[in-house]
Amino acid sequence: MKIVVDAFGGDNAPGEIIKGAVSAVTEEDGFSVVLVGKEDVIKKELSALGYDGKRIEVFDAPDVITNDDSPAEAIRTMRQSSIVKAYGILNKDPEAAAFVSAGSTGAVLAGAVLLVKRIKGINRPGLCPVLPTVKGGSVALIDCGANPDCKPENILQFAKMGSAYAKYVLGVKKPRVALLSNGTEDKKGNELNKAVFPMFKENPGINFLGNIEARDILSGDYDVVVSDGFSGNIALKASEGTALAFLSILKDGIMSGGLRAKLGYLMLKPVFKNVKKAMDYNDKGGAVLVGLEKLVVKSHGSSKAKSIKASVLQAKALAESGLTDEIKRVFESGND
Amino acid sequence: MKIVVDAFGGDNAPGEIIKGAVSAVTEEDGFSVVLVGKEDVIKKELSALGYDGKRIEVFDAPDVITNDDSPAEAIRTMRQSSIVKAYGILNKDPEAAAFVSAGSTGAVLAGAVLLVKRIKGINRPGLCPVLPTVKGGSVALIDCGANPDCKPENILQFAKMGSAYAKYVLGVKKPRVALLSNGTEDKKGNELNKAVFPMFKENPGINFLGNIEARDILSGDYDVVVSDGFSGNIALKASEGTALAFLSILKDGIMSGGLRAKLGYLMLKPVFKNVKKAMDYNDKGGAVLVGLEKLVVKSHGSSKAKSIKASVLQAKALAESGLTDEIKRVFESGND
Repeated sequence: MKIVVDAFGGDNAPGEIIKGAVSAVTEEDGFSVVLVGKEDVIKKELSALGYDGKRIEVFDAPDVITNDDSPAEAIRTMRQSSIVKAYGILNKDPEAAAFVSAGSTGAVLAGAVLLVKRIKGINRPGLCPVLPTVKGGSVALIDCGANPDCKPENILQFAKMGSAYAKYVLGVKKPRVALLSNGTEDKKGNELNKAVFPMFKENPGINFLGNIEARDILSGDYDVVVSDGFSGNIALKASEGTALAFLSILKDGIMSGGLRAKLGYLMLKPVFKNVKKAMDYNDKGGAVLVGLEKLVVKSHGSSKAKSIKASVLQAKALAESGLTDEIKRVFESGND
Repeated sequence: MKIVVDAFGGDNAPGEIIKGAVSAVTEEDGFSVVLVGKEDVIKKELSALGYDGKRIEVFDAPDVITNDDSPAEAIRTMRQSSIVKAYGILNKDPEAAAFVSAGSTGAVLAGAVLLVKRIKGINRPGLCPVLPTVKGGSVALIDCGANPDCKPENILQFAKMGSAYAKYVLGVKKPRVALLSNGTEDKKGNELNKAVFPMFKENPGINFLGNIEARDILSGDYDVVVSDGFSGNIALKASEGTALAFLSILKDGIMSGGLRAKLGYLMLKPVFKNVKKAMDYNDKGGAVLVGLEKLVVKSHGSSKAKSIKASVLQAKALAESGLTDEIKRVFESGND
């Protein structure tokens, strides 16, 4: 099995990406990595890191798509970019199981949609990050940004894919599915949600618990929260922003709180470290794009080696989990 | 000036609501309160609290709309409810400047839309809570739930009303306005956002800084964040949920962290208290519905006396601020 990695995607590329790939192959057996990007730079970095093994291939791609490029246009025109080249490998090499990138989210998603074959029966793939809950478990949030404009049937498909994800990746037997809305009552929602609600209710393949507000996403009472890509992105980013704001306000308070606060901080440091770890969904790898014949893992743009390693190992685990086959089975058999 | 208060709205009604109203008139002069609800119960509570002043009137309303009632239907059919009666007072009594309720958000909003006159030029009022930022300031988020389905012109109106709010209530000379989206680039967004973006850009009355992601709402770089009511509600509730999740995970960590953690917590207690206060937007009163001839303040459903007092005093301050006149001026003069 090969995991294809965008060596030139992200704020800390290529150094941290290459380091992360080396860590991943050092930590686990049973797969190899294809680093895609400027060949000479990658090779130099690899030898600087002292890596001379056979489990990392390098595939040349002289161009880089940045956050300033228009995603869909870049995918169409920058054929020599690391992202387009990586998708080419995914399509051609049956050994290539997944793609990991910390590059432009828009370009990674546009490339996936335009260049990678979808699973039969799925109109749009969904981006599915996994967040920590207050009960210590996890919740999958799908779609978080691949599809800013959705039709009801897209959202129904996200629910089915999310359920398969929770089953095969999070190990939940009967995933509890909720629909993200502006209230918990059955009739709450915008027009889109109101059209989706009865479809969820009537589908025997979805263990549907009803509408939830965004404040309940992290409650631990649900395994899958389903949303259109625009609202899901807003929920995800608002959570992220609030966690960061909380830490920032706390830090300011400690800094200006005199000796007592600083001593208190030192004593609570291990607790803070655990909280930060619990809240940091990036540490657990990236957001997975599901619904395609091959897996795509989008790491955070600010990923360092540790996150890239986590994403590569996550991609490998996903490829081994049977998730793609399960989704195929669900969509072949109809509603279940 | 009279502030009309729903004595039977909210989880802690009527006791905490009545207590909050008494605190408000005790703390500030220059206004009176009309408590709407079951007259005998309210009168009993008032005398139990030892209040025998002339600044609280009681207006009888035998019915209560709950969260289980369908909002629009309840407004149409439950004419004897505290919410419908309160809007009646708002419409009839020129002295009645504002309505405060901690009751069903849906019913308060539906009642406002169906029963209260809108300011000329405004198609839909917007719900506008004020959140704390990491820089110690405030940001107004409009619309947060009054309008789950919006047209581009509704969102343009929210931007103008939000700017007026930031000017007249938050005291910002030239409010910095952002559009909530799924990315910061100009072309990001769903179809609705893409239609709104150029309208913001071209409007001389809006100091438009561009699209932002939900993670930047609390950054302190913006005074007004504009959104459709569905996405805005999700951003608000996701922030709230994450702050609560953060506190909960922190608490668990302290509880299981042994003596060291508990000592550390005691030393940091004043800091935690400040953080909690900084993050708690309920403490500062409720979310304001703007765009109507009269003001409506929606307090959190879980409001206790302290929040109700804050909301009543906020309603009074809003009525005195000249906000409604400023909004009228903006919408009369066209684009500025």
